[in-house]
Amino acid sequence: MNSPTNSPDLAADVRTPAISAEQHKREEDLIEEVVASFDQTPDPRLKQLTQALTRHLHAFVREVRLTEAEWDQAIAFLTAAGDITDEHRQEFILLSDVFGISMQTVAMNNEAYANATEATVFGPFFVEDAPLIEIGGDIAGDAPGQPCWVEGSVKDTDGNPLAGARIEVWEADDDGFYDVQYTDGRVAGRAHLFADDEGNFSFWGLTPTPYPIPYDGPVGKLLLAVGRSPYRASHLHFMVSAPGTRTLVTHIFVKGDELLTRDSVFGVKESLIMKFEQQDASVPAPDGRDLAGADWARTRFDIVLAPAAAAATTAGAE
Amino acid sequence: MNSPTNSPDLAADVRTPAISAEQHKREEDLIEEVVASFDQTPDPRLKQLTQALTRHLHAFVREVRLTEAEWDQAIAFLTAAGDITDEHRQEFILLSDVFGISMQTVAMNNEAYANATEATVFGPFFVEDAPLIEIGGDIAGDAPGQPCWVEGSVKDTDGNPLAGARIEVWEADDDGFYDVQYTDGRVAGRAHLFADDEGNFSFWGLTPTPYPIPYDGPVGKLLLAVGRSPYRASHLHFMVSAPGTRTLVTHIFVKGDELLTRDSVFGVKESLIMKFEQQDASVPAPDGRDLAGADWARTRFDIVLAPAAAAATTAGAE
Ligand SMILES: [Fe+2]
Ligand SMILES: [Fe+2]
Repeated sequence: MNSPTNSPDLAADVRTPAISAEQHKREEDLIEEVVASFDQTPDPRLKQLTQALTRHLHAFVREVRLTEAEWDQAIAFLTAAGDITDEHRQEFILLSDVFGISMQTVAMNNEAYANATEATVFGPFFVEDAPLIEIGGDIAGDAPGQPCWVEGSVKDTDGNPLAGARIEVWEADDDGFYDVQYTDGRVAGRAHLFADDEGNFSFWGLTPTPYPIPYDGPVGKLLLAVGRSPYRASHLHFMVSAPGTRTLVTHIFVKGDELLTRDSVFGVKESLIMKFEQQDASVPAPDGRDLAGADWARTRFDIVLAPAAAAATTAGAE
Repeated sequence: MNSPTNSPDLAADVRTPAISAEQHKREEDLIEEVVASFDQTPDPRLKQLTQALTRHLHAFVREVRLTEAEWDQAIAFLTAAGDITDEHRQEFILLSDVFGISMQTVAMNNEAYANATEATVFGPFFVEDAPLIEIGGDIAGDAPGQPCWVEGSVKDTDGNPLAGARIEVWEADDDGFYDVQYTDGRVAGRAHLFADDEGNFSFWGLTPTPYPIPYDGPVGKLLLAVGRSPYRASHLHFMVSAPGTRTLVTHIFVKGDELLTRDSVFGVKESLIMKFEQQDASVPAPDGRDLAGADWARTRFDIVLAPAAAAATTAGAE
């Protein structure tokens, strides 16, 4: 951990061989002046944040030798992001997402702990008070898509089952939309259930399919300009909680999905890719459900929750 | 220039001693994944900008171990900045200003060159087609304030006068407002003139007085939270151009102004602080003007323009 793997890039700005000693001094003096302007901040954390942001922003603009025309474009970009943002659309979150900042924040605040399941991005489509289903129930509602049997377990990092763990699940339909993206008030593709006494759970959902993040704004234009797709890898959202554990917000992804290596928000983790086994219509469903001649899929997700104290490790590092 | 004076701060994120090797790897892998996502950007400059921005943003959030609550606050801040921004108000520019990014961009794009006059921020109040005045004319219009005689010269870095150099000047009135901030369409406190055959100029303006940047939005709230004033040091704006030279955008500041050390946008440069000499009403004006028994002030600003080729140095460094 002492090998500064990215310091060559970060240090580039302080070398900047093309500028004179006087120019170098002017630029460094300015940074120190700005940093010092935050010295009297009463809240020590706000002082730390503003001073660190100052140093990193200046390191960026100096490393790339930002031109005045590029600065104009950056201001115009943020202005356009503000223009399109309203109560239904959040372009600044999308911006954070496509630079991996959302995922990095999740990663830092859900530190690796023993064999605990990895977290990933929360996304904007969770809804409180989703319907309660029994174990083996169906979350799909009327959402179109291939039926998918999902089963698994919830345990702590010592392998003890977490009986009664609360499991929230939500996903897009086969057309790539969450229920809340429709204007008809439907509730579909979401539910909550509780693990049984052995910590096991199962439910019917839909085999996940890909969908794009909204790309009709400045973030979409940026993705187009850099040759990136706005699509997210197919996924099924989970939020899992149990007393004494760190609440887990995560997805499972579909093995073989060609979008796994280019998820637009960098949510994919190798450990979260699951095999979704395609089943011919002739194969009986695990619970005897009549699938009316349709093919279906099944997958398994064994969840391990870190102890609640693991969250404090992160806080302690601040 | 090989001494990496700010690298201890920048490198702090890669040490992050409180996190495990596995956590460290997850965070670094994510950065590389995001950087690689820009690899296919057709425009090499856009690729450089997006990849450098990725590294510096991640370095920032990792150094401070940004919490999810703080990420929420950052999104809310940008959203509020977008909300208040319209055709008359630009909160993102103010944000850039109060972190010194605007000034740093100006500094980088107007590199130190011999004895050339230093540049400073352009500001939002310049207007094209300001009135033409003769040498010795008055820019004040009906703007209230103390009359101030400003004289000086425009030369190149070899000391040759730049005959006919174009000089744009603009400033706030005694109440701290530029003409364009009033709704009555007035034109006051701004003009352009041309240096004479010896490169000399003079005009009547107003002794500069301080004014705040707009502080009723999120940037103002931030300044309040960090204990900073929104006020700018008193100043008079100049934009000076002549064939074969690099156009200079700058201010002059008032020696003795108590705001010099805490200009809200970091525009003050030692070399731009001028002595404004207060004159009793009994002292005759240089041009014999009748000041109607009012006191007045005078100052001198000798301007040196870098050769136009000096601008190319910056472009070449990119
Ligand atoms: Fe999603
Ligand atoms: Fe100004």
